[in-house]
Amino acid sequence: MQDFEFYNPTKIIFGKDKVSELDHLIPKEAKVLILYGGGSVKKYGTLNKVIEALGGRTYLEFGGIEPNPKYETLMKAVEIVRHEKIDFLLAVGGGSVIDGTKFINLAAHFEGNSEDLLIYIDPVDSVTKALPIGTVLTLPATGSEMNRGAVISFKDGKYPVFSNLFFPQFSILDPTLTYSLPRTQVGNGIVDTFIHTVEQYVTYPSEAMFQDRAAEGILQTLIEIGPKTLENPTDYESRANFVWSATMALNGLIGSGVPQDWTTHAIGHEMTALYGIDHGKTLAILQPSIWTIRKKQKWDKLLQYADRVWHIKDMDEEATIDLAIYKTREFFESLGIKTRLSDYNLTKTHIEEILSNLEKHGQTALSETGDLTLEDSRRILENAL
Amino acid sequence: MQDFEFYNPTKIIFGKDKVSELDHLIPKEAKVLILYGGGSVKKYGTLNKVIEALGGRTYLEFGGIEPNPKYETLMKAVEIVRHEKIDFLLAVGGGSVIDGTKFINLAAHFEGNSEDLLIYIDPVDSVTKALPIGTVLTLPATGSEMNRGAVISFKDGKYPVFSNLFFPQFSILDPTLTYSLPRTQVGNGIVDTFIHTVEQYVTYPSEAMFQDRAAEGILQTLIEIGPKTLENPTDYESRANFVWSATMALNGLIGSGVPQDWTTHAIGHEMTALYGIDHGKTLAILQPSIWTIRKKQKWDKLLQYADRVWHIKDMDEEATIDLAIYKTREFFESLGIKTRLSDYNLTKTHIEEILSNLEKHGQTALSETGDLTLEDSRRILENAL
Repeated sequence: MQDFEFYNPTKIIFGKDKVSELDHLIPKEAKVLILYGGGSVKKYGTLNKVIEALGGRTYLEFGGIEPNPKYETLMKAVEIVRHEKIDFLLAVGGGSVIDGTKFINLAAHFEGNSEDLLIYIDPVDSVTKALPIGTVLTLPATGSEMNRGAVISFKDGKYPVFSNLFFPQFSILDPTLTYSLPRTQVGNGIVDTFIHTVEQYVTYPSEAMFQDRAAEGILQTLIEIGPKTLENPTDYESRANFVWSATMALNGLIGSGVPQDWTTHAIGHEMTALYGIDHGKTLAILQPSIWTIRKKQKWDKLLQYADRVWHIKDMDEEATIDLAIYKTREFFESLGIKTRLSDYNLTKTHIEEILSNLEKHGQTALSETGDLTLEDSRRILENAL
Repeated sequence: MQDFEFYNPTKIIFGKDKVSELDHLIPKEAKVLILYGGGSVKKYGTLNKVIEALGGRTYLEFGGIEPNPKYETLMKAVEIVRHEKIDFLLAVGGGSVIDGTKFINLAAHFEGNSEDLLIYIDPVDSVTKALPIGTVLTLPATGSEMNRGAVISFKDGKYPVFSNLFFPQFSILDPTLTYSLPRTQVGNGIVDTFIHTVEQYVTYPSEAMFQDRAAEGILQTLIEIGPKTLENPTDYESRANFVWSATMALNGLIGSGVPQDWTTHAIGHEMTALYGIDHGKTLAILQPSIWTIRKKQKWDKLLQYADRVWHIKDMDEEATIDLAIYKTREFFESLGIKTRLSDYNLTKTHIEEILSNLEKHGQTALSETGDLTLEDSRRILENAL
């Protein structure tokens, strides 16, 4: 096991009809800014429930945080936080709204040029105090409700930012609030959770047994309940297990003491930034090809994955791995997520664009060992055509 | 999945030679009280490492916290905390030292009669501020390094106390610090961890899939590395996996959203209080008998346990369960832990004493469903003879 630090102070309130807990979680005298995305939290009544739970508290609203939240959008909320003397930020939505809220909080408490927060660590670390954030999760996928990360879109790139100030003070996870999600978003969320897990698991062996068993547990759960929760969105048990798996996949736990390989996200972010392909879909396109091209480097863990997640036995090693990759692709497709670049009308020309942006953003030494070159990314993308 | 709240703000620093991190973790100007047990932290150099890491900080020592820490012992430290204006409590030891330190902290900040803290919730909850606690773990077993519980011995009973003030601010988990543990304590710790896990797992099905997979992961890990770490105490990987499993077994995670059955601990505490039998050993005696007597109530989860932990297939259901119970007992015995009351010279007469104390302490409606009577406890103990 590698040395590690683990710290995660977010309080989780999980279950049906938990929005009313807001009344106990937010100070009575707080002036609250409620942040959300498009109209769905209004349409399906979640925003009303939130406002009701806030009782007589003073609140303002900031809606319109888009998927892959844009720096420019978020900076408008920064102005509100500063000038309205907000005490508490309440994000109501999925990963984009929560990520956006985290960044708004950071930028509102930063004296310099907020663009620097996207690129450099020092300015981020210079902010030592910010407002408490609470979240009401409506889309299980990113794990943002219980971690210290955020991904912000700026110009033609997506920028991951990390800060301990990003941990929400609390997150309300009510699976019933996700019943109204469109099918495609549920599929994307299942894939996103799956990929978060394998990026911390399918690397090289590090004898971190609990972490591996927990990762395998998340993957097995997704395989078991993924199709179910897609078909029967209001089946509480399968949706609840999806929601909790999504949180556990990226709250630091399964990644403690193990190598991590965020290649899939790195290349995927460029594809979303360039062509607006849903984040989850970019991951589904890339993962089978990354494993195909990096088979040798990931051999032992791919065998473990094939055995413990897919229960593939009694075949020769390469056939075992190939079948595991095939089954992974098949699983994504079964969720209605297409897994080829050509399914999204991307061709060799687009690959050049993606590679060019990877280079521009310094993504030229990816993988758990830092030896995945731009040329490897090309092979991966060509394999994914 | 049942509704749940999860909150655990303890920071974990895991790895070799991490004691030196104390210098970054404790404020420079803090006056520190170092708490420990017998002489082993002195004998094996851990205390010296801690003092060295504290640099020039002012510190006092309070040694002599015994296994199953006694109220009277702890109250002596309460006086020191109050009169010496201590700023930081640093527990160096195993579960008893850490539990003791938690209670000392609570009592030092309580105005009333500290005995009330053992029995009533209101006095505990009336304490809203206490000192930060850090721990340097030397014995993996209780999970106290990352939870809100403590068990205190008082007169002829053991009293569990819970408070959010009990979460250590940080815990340093350096597996190499545990190399010098006596074989019997390692065996006890493995059993304790195993039982913590099954008490949150072998109950009735609640469709909490990640929690079940994580619990099974801990059990599989203990079965795999238990004998190894007993035979080769300085094998880093097996010891590291034991240490992290012990923490994960009782930090709230696998118990979130599932029924829990603390019968084994409830009866075991009486046996330790009456006869001084090691905590881990009382659990090893009781668990197979509890499952035998409560087979019907735990049928489905015992089958799941047999299948997923012991990989018992293709037998009829009762034979499957019986074999799983047999294998569990065999596992404990393989660790050098005897599993029969008679192995500890306890007879029917002692059973009457244990039952009498269970009644005295109100432990007459145990189990995950609250229907395990004193008569059931009698059958369990008789089965364990």
